[in-house]
Amino acid sequence: MQILDGRKTSASIKDELKAKVAELKKEGKKVPHLAAVLVGEDGGSITYVNAKVKACDYVGYDSTLIRFPDSISEEELLSKVDELNNDKSIDGFIVQLPLPKHIDERKVTLAIDPAKDVDGFHPENIGRMSLGLPSFLPATPNGIMELLKRHNIQTEGKHCVIIGRSSIVGTPLSILMSRNDKHANATVTLCHSRTKNLEEICRDADILVAAIGKPYFVKENMVKDGAVVIDVGTSRLEDSSKKSGYKLAGDVAFDEVAEKCSFITPVPGGVGPMTIASLLLNTYEANKRFQSA
Amino acid sequence: MQILDGRKTSASIKDELKAKVAELKKEGKKVPHLAAVLVGEDGGSITYVNAKVKACDYVGYDSTLIRFPDSISEEELLSKVDELNNDKSIDGFIVQLPLPKHIDERKVTLAIDPAKDVDGFHPENIGRMSLGLPSFLPATPNGIMELLKRHNIQTEGKHCVIIGRSSIVGTPLSILMSRNDKHANATVTLCHSRTKNLEEICRDADILVAAIGKPYFVKENMVKDGAVVIDVGTSRLEDSSKKSGYKLAGDVAFDEVAEKCSFITPVPGGVGPMTIASLLLNTYEANKRFQSA
Repeated sequence: MQILDGRKTSASIKDELKAKVAELKKEGKKVPHLAAVLVGEDGGSITYVNAKVKACDYVGYDSTLIRFPDSISEEELLSKVDELNNDKSIDGFIVQLPLPKHIDERKVTLAIDPAKDVDGFHPENIGRMSLGLPSFLPATPNGIMELLKRHNIQTEGKHCVIIGRSSIVGTPLSILMSRNDKHANATVTLCHSRTKNLEEICRDADILVAAIGKPYFVKENMVKDGAVVIDVGTSRLEDSSKKSGYKLAGDVAFDEVAEKCSFITPVPGGVGPMTIASLLLNTYEANKRFQSA
Repeated sequence: MQILDGRKTSASIKDELKAKVAELKKEGKKVPHLAAVLVGEDGGSITYVNAKVKACDYVGYDSTLIRFPDSISEEELLSKVDELNNDKSIDGFIVQLPLPKHIDERKVTLAIDPAKDVDGFHPENIGRMSLGLPSFLPATPNGIMELLKRHNIQTEGKHCVIIGRSSIVGTPLSILMSRNDKHANATVTLCHSRTKNLEEICRDADILVAAIGKPYFVKENMVKDGAVVIDVGTSRLEDSSKKSGYKLAGDVAFDEVAEKCSFITPVPGGVGPMTIASLLLNTYEANKRFQSA
């Protein structure tokens, strides 16, 4: 069994980008600039956004963090999105989800210019991905593909079972995994809450992806010997032994599943850091397009 | 075994639309107007486009057929697309594929205003469909969903296996079938040329969809007893006994498969007519949106 170390892989990607940015600077060119919009005081969101800003600093991107109180109106937020769409100094930006309940997340997502949508959530980017056209790939699914590729894990002709059909992970990953590309080309089964015989289907998976947000849902009896297991879950469970008062729990019961696997991602330190690496890759592309526009 | 009669179902949809159009006329409102662009002299394309125009006449839509010789340049075609995008009298239009080799089909597809893209091929419509947002659904996949729905065939919790990942049938159908909707909610496996153990996977299907364009590919040993089989194939095979000199062949070996099925679509007369019904439904919606804009 081998651990798919997302931190290490993400660190390699960041070092590659850092070298490229140094090159841009040497040539006197504009470096990528990411803006992040954060609404409210959600602990998880603050942690994620800070990690994204820190990653930008590391690779040498410019970054701008824009914070609003929970009380911001939808209208004000949409007007900020509009401003960022038109701000030529910014190559790409994200609006950290979830948003407070009085704001329509879809409306905000749809308001982002697809050409600056480095999270890859806009329907135009999802659609272009489905059609195999150049696009910003959604950060988590693309992070998973990169993690597999950089560990030389073959996906072609393999049976990939995905649990969870969310619009930011499961559904787009099912499209990416089945595309006609030597680093994809998997036979994909997309499972969800209405799926029958889930355990049986999972046991047939060469590559099993759990993305439902239910701690320790995937048990030993759901995994085939030698399978590759990707755990996208990051639930917070109370844990008084931790300084923070909580621990992160994946969707996979790691302790009982790991020994059956050929490869498995840990939580934390697996898919999470890859999502940030993906965002940096998209922002780099956004800057490149902007330069050539 | 019951035949899924696409002609009959399509006829019901057309009659429903005809009644609605009569209502619009009575109220003095604008009726839907579909334009179709046909390039060259391909026999199949001429047949399809004529069938679409005829269907418009039947339901009472206005229709405009625009024909160009094979020699039309990409630029001229794009300029016609632009004209149709801006022509307020036209609610929706299609450019019949395939196009001559010197014209980039993707460029043409991308040039169509998503709000007039009644074929549902534009990435924005595909992406909106993936995210469960209102959109024009791609005509063939949506025709299949309608055919199942109108025969009260349950898809929820069923295992749907799709052979073929084309961007106009297999891939979008996999997304539609797995969406969270009581007329969808299937567990979907998308198979293609790189899939291993295809026969075994197909044998597990409650609903089997063949969309690869290989005549008689699906044999008796690939179908589970009681399965629902949907045949999207329409290959032309030479047949000197026919007046036209050819016959239409599906992807399914109907004669040996049919008796194992609970439901099966014939070729011709199954999915084909449903595609046209779907196009009419999309055009009706386009007109409705236009009215309320």
